[in-house]
Amino acid sequence: MPRYRLTIEYDGTPFSGWQRQSDRPSVQRALEEAINAMSGEAVTTQAAGRTDAGVHALGQVAHFDLSKEWDPFRIREALNYHLRPQPVAIIAAEAVDDTFEARFSATARHYEYRILTRRAPPVIERDHVWHIPKTLDAEAMDHAASLILGTHDFTTFRSSECQANSPLRTLDAFAVRRELDHIIVTASARSFLHHQVRSMVGSLRMVGEGKWSPADFRAALDARDRSRCGAMAPSSGLYLTGVSY
Amino acid sequence: MPRYRLTIEYDGTPFSGWQRQSDRPSVQRALEEAINAMSGEAVTTQAAGRTDAGVHALGQVAHFDLSKEWDPFRIREALNYHLRPQPVAIIAAEAVDDTFEARFSATARHYEYRILTRRAPPVIERDHVWHIPKTLDAEAMDHAASLILGTHDFTTFRSSECQANSPLRTLDAFAVRRELDHIIVTASARSFLHHQVRSMVGSLRMVGEGKWSPADFRAALDARDRSRCGAMAPSSGLYLTGVSY
Repeated sequence: MPRYRLTIEYDGTPFSGWQRQSDRPSVQRALEEAINAMSGEAVTTQAAGRTDAGVHALGQVAHFDLSKEWDPFRIREALNYHLRPQPVAIIAAEAVDDTFEARFSATARHYEYRILTRRAPPVIERDHVWHIPKTLDAEAMDHAASLILGTHDFTTFRSSECQANSPLRTLDAFAVRRELDHIIVTASARSFLHHQVRSMVGSLRMVGEGKWSPADFRAALDARDRSRCGAMAPSSGLYLTGVSY
Repeated sequence: MPRYRLTIEYDGTPFSGWQRQSDRPSVQRALEEAINAMSGEAVTTQAAGRTDAGVHALGQVAHFDLSKEWDPFRIREALNYHLRPQPVAIIAAEAVDDTFEARFSATARHYEYRILTRRAPPVIERDHVWHIPKTLDAEAMDHAASLILGTHDFTTFRSSECQANSPLRTLDAFAVRRELDHIIVTASARSFLHHQVRSMVGSLRMVGEGKWSPADFRAALDARDRSRCGAMAPSSGLYLTGVSY
């Protein structure tokens, strides 16, 4: 059967997350209903990253199969039509080989975490940043982030409900920069543990506030102890920005 | 009486504009009610720019008087508390001399207009950009913009309901640049006519689509004829970014 790959942007605010749930709105359900409205087919989509409730995506990738061939341009246009007014948009659609798997073929997931550091609450960016009403030391945070690059046991930064077989992951990029009154954290890895990015960012906040040194941050990793993690950052600031294949 | 100056950010989407209206929500009313809740005083605020319905602000400036002295830090905190959950935030508050007038002391207003140029509709930026589902020629638009810098009769780019005494205005800055799939238009002037920025941007679109040359854009200005204006750009893409004094 012909296989199609979608690049998807969504505002995670009204959704219980990517994954279909029986009783709550999910991005997966919105998408599968749009595919059904377009094609008449009941399909199951598979995504590169099953984002949590409130997490946004600028470049989620998913694939699905249809029984006949469709023009990818028509797929993009038709799905965007049927998705309205839900905050989900198809940025790109393309036909792919049936060996392509959005989840298993991915070689890297890229996330961005946005923190607004000013006294006044976010307005234009409400639900789209983590509001911390004080200045953070971005240089110290970036130094701390650099200390945990590479392959480690990330038990400290892993949800207690994480179902991955192994706590070992390889962090290929992890950096912090300031943009005016924002702090932007970027993270890339082949895959992440459940809540890993939000756990790492919550702990980096301790460094940004001067409560932890960068060495304390590294020591928290080395402890392999979930209780050493800083309070987890909220979902509102997290964006899945892209997936590499 | 002590006078205070506020720098204000707001999401214009739910408001009928800055100016107080008897039957619809306005930013001015939200702010004056918050000042009343804080101080018990019924004040009238004056803003640098009376933005239209749906127009956003990152740096609106307003002033008001109170009968007694307040710590500006307390004003900012209290107003942000009382403004919630409305999408209005006080970025800064300061005590100013009673000769300061937010509207009449201003030496320049700065606006930014954001256009999203891709097929897929905006999602994260819904209500915060103008969606034009095709590529625009940013260089031609920027060239056209440069041709109308300076002092001119802006009748072509002025609402038929504009109440200004004169159609003469001086455009100090007007430029267009591309940022990935966005086109950003910036405009600065001591003051603008009603709908001037949105009228100019609507006409620049004609240049971006190749329907007008930059010279056609300049000729539309020179015609001093409202019927020569391109279809006006929507309010959703417009931001009052700051005011100079």
